[in-house]
Amino acid sequence: MRAVDVIQKKRDGGALTREEIAFMVQGFTNEQVADYQFSALLMAIFLNGMTKEETLFLTEEMLHSGTVLDLSDIPGAKVDKHSTGGVGDKTSIVIAPLVAQAGLMVPMISGRGLGHTGGTLDKLESIPGFSVNLSLDQFRDVLNKVGMGLIGQTKEIAPADKKIYSLRDVTATVESIALISASIMSKKMAEGIDALVLDVKTGRGAFMKTVEDSRALAESLVGIGRGMGKRVSALVTDMSQPLGNAIGNSLEIIECIEALKGMGPADLTDLSVEFSDMMICLGGQTNEFGAAKEKLSDMIASGSALERLQKSIELQGGDPRVCDDYSLFPTAANKLDVKAKQSGFVTKCDALDIGVGSMLLGAGRERVDSIIDHAVGVILNKKIGDQVDAGEPLCTIHYNSDARLAESIALIERGYVISEESVRAEPLIKELI
Amino acid sequence: MRAVDVIQKKRDGGALTREEIAFMVQGFTNEQVADYQFSALLMAIFLNGMTKEETLFLTEEMLHSGTVLDLSDIPGAKVDKHSTGGVGDKTSIVIAPLVAQAGLMVPMISGRGLGHTGGTLDKLESIPGFSVNLSLDQFRDVLNKVGMGLIGQTKEIAPADKKIYSLRDVTATVESIALISASIMSKKMAEGIDALVLDVKTGRGAFMKTVEDSRALAESLVGIGRGMGKRVSALVTDMSQPLGNAIGNSLEIIECIEALKGMGPADLTDLSVEFSDMMICLGGQTNEFGAAKEKLSDMIASGSALERLQKSIELQGGDPRVCDDYSLFPTAANKLDVKAKQSGFVTKCDALDIGVGSMLLGAGRERVDSIIDHAVGVILNKKIGDQVDAGEPLCTIHYNSDARLAESIALIERGYVISEESVRAEPLIKELI
Repeated sequence: MRAVDVIQKKRDGGALTREEIAFMVQGFTNEQVADYQFSALLMAIFLNGMTKEETLFLTEEMLHSGTVLDLSDIPGAKVDKHSTGGVGDKTSIVIAPLVAQAGLMVPMISGRGLGHTGGTLDKLESIPGFSVNLSLDQFRDVLNKVGMGLIGQTKEIAPADKKIYSLRDVTATVESIALISASIMSKKMAEGIDALVLDVKTGRGAFMKTVEDSRALAESLVGIGRGMGKRVSALVTDMSQPLGNAIGNSLEIIECIEALKGMGPADLTDLSVEFSDMMICLGGQTNEFGAAKEKLSDMIASGSALERLQKSIELQGGDPRVCDDYSLFPTAANKLDVKAKQSGFVTKCDALDIGVGSMLLGAGRERVDSIIDHAVGVILNKKIGDQVDAGEPLCTIHYNSDARLAESIALIERGYVISEESVRAEPLIKELI
Repeated sequence: MRAVDVIQKKRDGGALTREEIAFMVQGFTNEQVADYQFSALLMAIFLNGMTKEETLFLTEEMLHSGTVLDLSDIPGAKVDKHSTGGVGDKTSIVIAPLVAQAGLMVPMISGRGLGHTGGTLDKLESIPGFSVNLSLDQFRDVLNKVGMGLIGQTKEIAPADKKIYSLRDVTATVESIALISASIMSKKMAEGIDALVLDVKTGRGAFMKTVEDSRALAESLVGIGRGMGKRVSALVTDMSQPLGNAIGNSLEIIECIEALKGMGPADLTDLSVEFSDMMICLGGQTNEFGAAKEKLSDMIASGSALERLQKSIELQGGDPRVCDDYSLFPTAANKLDVKAKQSGFVTKCDALDIGVGSMLLGAGRERVDSIIDHAVGVILNKKIGDQVDAGEPLCTIHYNSDARLAESIALIERGYVISEESVRAEPLIKELI
């Protein structure tokens, strides 16, 4: 087999065989196929697409380039949730303790934030002492003890994905549904899970801006997971405005703790319960979606899920007292209200503008190597549909440096639109796949 | 400017500016743009195409990556001919002395054969002592003395083309009209010529198999040349059967000498006169196509064009006595006739099959590093439209090794089709662009 012939086949719109995909991925990983050949293939895939079957083959090749966890010696179904990323998207930290408390295992390997989107690892690291850098053995141990583990991708997991992603990043081949799907699923399937729920965000603050594109991505992801014999479902959910009210790492963890105390914003709590219920069902504990919701509400009311989170924080080296004393979190030196310039109704609270505004404060990464300030961020006081009087605070900016403060304020102000006529926010959950 | 943004623009179907193309070509040449980025751009160009303007910008950037000959101190118009390549396609060696004899300058930089197609340089090297590896200074000197110079591409000419072509070859991005056009024209325009005629071959033995594709390539090439202020015309000509009767290096040179003696096959002589006439007109000596044909016939009848070739051979280190004594050429040890199995009319004499058959004897290169045997080849006794009796020779194979002889014979036999009903050969000249 020759790389040039495989590239030509994809260039001409053909569907690659499992053998051809294996040849290219393995060849690229062990440097038998040159990077300039693999990038030509990536562009051909970007422009001509991949069939569902090809995408599955690609995912499997990338998955098997590294370690696939075998958690079969740990009792209980292993389930996880993955989100395609958004602003204020913090459900993992609410979901993991709920689902673990229900008796399932949640081996969660998460990522970091980039651009306007946040990352679970960055949020967790705002908890003093918390370590996301466990070895796979330590991870198994924590999982065994508390039913949940929260770590970052190790170099043993899907190394082909890392190498391919680096190449996509510099060759304008990122936004391909086939390539995105294979990248996500090769990492998730390495967790040794039985079931997975996917949160495919849609709207201005999401990677996919339209419901059509989000649905296509959701279908591709679900197709791969089911093709690999796993129980997988997806929700397409709104990311036109941020989720919850807090954006920024310690601010978001505090909001999660509040949600587990029953005092979180409705959208965050509802979506977290929705996904937890799906995971419990796909994990085999209930027979239909919705059946576990009452039990989940009880876990919030009783505080048992919060206790589970506290225990998890302790096992991963963090200070569990943060759940009761928020002053232990890094706190910003300054606060500043962004005020409404007119009275009316909030008709836009733009996730992208507010996400970038928050990133400029230091809550997110402008580039891969940017340094995060865990204390800073934005607390939204008003969201779409809310009535507001002129002069009333729309949100509060928490900041340490004023280096890019003006730029941040301008973006956040642009992100809010106030009109005379009220509108309803987009439904949070748009589609079930 | 960032390479990834330029790639993305072309990926999304945009037209690149002169500055963007310059950034990528210069960057690739001086290794500021990585080869894996350039190959992604090549695939995006392959699949999304380039406008006429973009193709012109690309050609100009590739041209100016190296030396552009300045022949303005040599008196007379400088004109050249370029063919996209075929089987038995030897017109350059007839045209150059005719046009030089007419008083124009023919600075001809040619290529080598690959696959079933031959190359002018290989043919010339069958003349004992002939050197195609002149320095640019020696080239000017020969041109000044005899009005024609026949050399290979030097490393000073369009180095970006060489680098880009190597990458295209291994990334399945060869067959793109924009990229082919820029490659051809960047080299031709480096010759410092005022006018150019293009022979765009079409049919089974050509790079472009259909008239539509050949016309598109011809229009692209002519567009670039005229866009650079040169007088350029093209003919789309038939390559469904070989041109002339000889295929193979010394056999083809002998056929050219015969043509200059007035004894060549009609198709070779006619096409050579046609192009020579066009060059004389585009070079400014006549006002319309056709006006120089009589003068050209006279040059053949008088032997003056042959004398010009003889002088040129001598100046480039070759033995001029070959024109009178063909035994000085490398000669094959064995001959073998391929005979007609039935009586009837030749309805197919396939340029591709016969070209590959000839290559297998050693007349051409299967790979870039294959060694040529200048003596071997095929002489066609019958071509399309000819009547033939069973047992009569269709062609004669000249060979030295029988290593792949059976394979060669099989292909050549497959290339000939004899039917009861006669057909007319395709017209030699299909279109003028």
